[in-house]
Amino acid sequence: MNRTEIRQLFASPQDFEGKTVTVCGWVRTIRDSKALGFIELNDGGCFNNLQIVFEDEKINNFKEVTKYNVGSAICVTGTLLLTPQAKQPFEIHAQEIVLEGASTPDYPLQKKRHTLEYLRTIAHLRPRTNTLSAVFRVRSVAAYAIHRFFNERGFVYAHTPLITASDCEGAGEMFRVTTLDPVNPPLNEDGTVDFSQDFFGKPANLTVSGQLEGECMAMAFGKIYTFGPTFRAENSNTPRHAAEFWMIEPEIAFADLNDDMELARDMIKYVLKYVMEQCPAEMKFFNQFFDKGLIERLSALIDSEFGHVTYTEAIRILEEHKDEFEYPVYWGVDLQTEHERYLTEKVFKCPVFVTDYPKEIKAFYMRLNDDNKTVAAMDLLVPGVGEIIGGSQREERLDVLLGRMEELSLSPEDYNWYLDLRRYGGTKHAGFGLGFERLIMYITGISNIRDVLPFPRTTGSAEY
Amino acid sequence: MNRTEIRQLFASPQDFEGKTVTVCGWVRTIRDSKALGFIELNDGGCFNNLQIVFEDEKINNFKEVTKYNVGSAICVTGTLLLTPQAKQPFEIHAQEIVLEGASTPDYPLQKKRHTLEYLRTIAHLRPRTNTLSAVFRVRSVAAYAIHRFFNERGFVYAHTPLITASDCEGAGEMFRVTTLDPVNPPLNEDGTVDFSQDFFGKPANLTVSGQLEGECMAMAFGKIYTFGPTFRAENSNTPRHAAEFWMIEPEIAFADLNDDMELARDMIKYVLKYVMEQCPAEMKFFNQFFDKGLIERLSALIDSEFGHVTYTEAIRILEEHKDEFEYPVYWGVDLQTEHERYLTEKVFKCPVFVTDYPKEIKAFYMRLNDDNKTVAAMDLLVPGVGEIIGGSQREERLDVLLGRMEELSLSPEDYNWYLDLRRYGGTKHAGFGLGFERLIMYITGISNIRDVLPFPRTTGSAEY
Repeated sequence: MNRTEIRQLFASPQDFEGKTVTVCGWVRTIRDSKALGFIELNDGGCFNNLQIVFEDEKINNFKEVTKYNVGSAICVTGTLLLTPQAKQPFEIHAQEIVLEGASTPDYPLQKKRHTLEYLRTIAHLRPRTNTLSAVFRVRSVAAYAIHRFFNERGFVYAHTPLITASDCEGAGEMFRVTTLDPVNPPLNEDGTVDFSQDFFGKPANLTVSGQLEGECMAMAFGKIYTFGPTFRAENSNTPRHAAEFWMIEPEIAFADLNDDMELARDMIKYVLKYVMEQCPAEMKFFNQFFDKGLIERLSALIDSEFGHVTYTEAIRILEEHKDEFEYPVYWGVDLQTEHERYLTEKVFKCPVFVTDYPKEIKAFYMRLNDDNKTVAAMDLLVPGVGEIIGGSQREERLDVLLGRMEELSLSPEDYNWYLDLRRYGGTKHAGFGLGFERLIMYITGISNIRDVLPFPRTTGSAEY
Repeated sequence: MNRTEIRQLFASPQDFEGKTVTVCGWVRTIRDSKALGFIELNDGGCFNNLQIVFEDEKINNFKEVTKYNVGSAICVTGTLLLTPQAKQPFEIHAQEIVLEGASTPDYPLQKKRHTLEYLRTIAHLRPRTNTLSAVFRVRSVAAYAIHRFFNERGFVYAHTPLITASDCEGAGEMFRVTTLDPVNPPLNEDGTVDFSQDFFGKPANLTVSGQLEGECMAMAFGKIYTFGPTFRAENSNTPRHAAEFWMIEPEIAFADLNDDMELARDMIKYVLKYVMEQCPAEMKFFNQFFDKGLIERLSALIDSEFGHVTYTEAIRILEEHKDEFEYPVYWGVDLQTEHERYLTEKVFKCPVFVTDYPKEIKAFYMRLNDDNKTVAAMDLLVPGVGEIIGGSQREERLDVLLGRMEELSLSPEDYNWYLDLRRYGGTKHAGFGLGFERLIMYITGISNIRDVLPFPRTTGSAEY
């Protein structure tokens, strides 16, 4: 079968004018009057539906076609006619319509507005809706933009491991990965589990970050990025948390916090620009139905200078407006989303980097500043969201790093390989993490993380 | 610091002739005579080392530099001179060499041949060697080639879940993902584990394939691919098995087994061509040190027609040579690597698709052929390796699929969402799986999977 994809028709309809083509796709709507029928056909290759016109006199299975249900898969052979006066720029006049796969009247996606909550209960079908198809195509295009960006700049894409016996952040909420008998695990004499009999011979977990392994790769390749799944066993049932999500973590050698901020800025601008260029129909849809200011806000960001303020200065500014916040503001506190949004939306009116946070609220590997109180960390705050990227220059000085680890009671033996990076040709280096779903939420205006992951995993839910 | 990357110099040395540049990287070798020293510098951005020449009279820290250890990180400012007579096409005459990070005389990667086995024990440092840096760069370039290939053809990149409560293949060897107390898990009255108290409210595992979820996406987008980590808890300590590996799984709607084979062929050719174009130095290195016939074999594949034989015919051919095999050959048996290699290397002398396998040795979702004995499956066999891709047309007929599931005692309730794809606008569709590590082994000639994964996870090993 010589099939034409609908996106090819939309790309240059004039090339197909008067020609006979065969298109395949799924019926989004179907209606007929006595002698004329109309089908909105979508083949998933683009956001737009194709209008099919079928006439009683032109096709011999007219009666049959009028009975097709929404959701049916069909193949249509017909002639393309330009329709400059009509709503749609062109349509196909069918000579033949073949049913590839029937649907039923109880197809769950009838033509009406469904809530996002309802659509989550049919995650296997919801990519067929306007909203979710737009979200997941933007997701795909944004992922490609990220690979393109780093590739153009000579970064090596590093696959860091997901199963790990080390916990990067030193923090807790990890999933255990095991093949032991859940009811009767082998025990040691002291009653603890004998993990030597587990698959990896020791307790293993799902990673919360590929950063430490990414640093190993950066000390060999100079510039690397990871882009892969990451996990949190946090029991938080919020619109912004998922147990499984994708993260991008670049790491650059011979680079400091300024280089890191430049990279983050360039990457965000690149991805937004690329998605807006590649997905105009999807972006228009989001702008119309989910966030009226979306395109304006994203366009502004692409052209915008990015602000920069230290944490200490940011706290001073926020303290002047402390009555406007629910959460307290004082030096040493972790910024809440309300504070972040105030800074980027009200104070700076543009994306802004906040840098040099108190060491107490940041991870052990961040580079200690000369004040001995703050570390060379950076968060990028954007209007409408707050923090979207978090990064830092890493501590490359072995003695300082060991000192920090001692303060936090981290055992050097557990991090021997990480410390080796400082023993053998260590360099200034920096990196950041971007939660991919948060980026997609920002780009689409969709406010629940469950609607930007095809099959979301959250507390109590791992369906499909 | 206005740093130039070494790959920029190699790309067009004449542009830099006589100019002063600053390069940063790691010392691969260093040697000095009375008044002259030589450093081979690598910055990870390309395979090649840059030769640095430093003269007693030209730099004031000459004595110091001569004491730098292999593995040190340095920044060099100097002038580029073309050296058409010498082994290297150009070199840098240093005016200044700054030590960025020292190394020590016990740096584990001294200039000598290390075995791959030894290098596995220092996985955090081994990307700094010629071999592993070449492997991981080829890995990165091949990953990009895959994204490019599918993107150019309008495929949507689908992120299917890793944590799952369903087992695609119906087979067993999965890792359990849990947050339950390993010593005292909550129990039901009958003594079984009360998984309702586990994080997802039921038993959850790490996925062995994203195919079933990929099919959901293909029924919406028409053409999708996955590219992500996959897991097997197989206790097999072989050079070809890892517990965590990456897989590419495209799925195409309105497509049959022939379309599937075409896609597999085009993809393999595209990726090989792209890697050979982008990584000539790496490929030359592999050809020289790991597999003398590598470049010839890969080049031949790119230009080659691909053969096609049915399983039944393949068995007939193999039976004629049964004395040459260790494992028995008869209709119904699963082909061993020796059989596969014999077919592609001796019989067809080119890559070959074997199709239409007995249903008993293939998965439940593969489309039953009219003979009622075989299914529309395909394996792609390539010289030197054997099977590299496995795929099939999927069973789109609800009644036939239910029949197969009943034969295999699979419960329709567990697959209700998968069956829905056949109830609502199901189409002919097909797909395949490509193990990414196996592809990298094929491209590089590296024979152990532990050497193509940056941090391999295998039985008893999840270090780093």
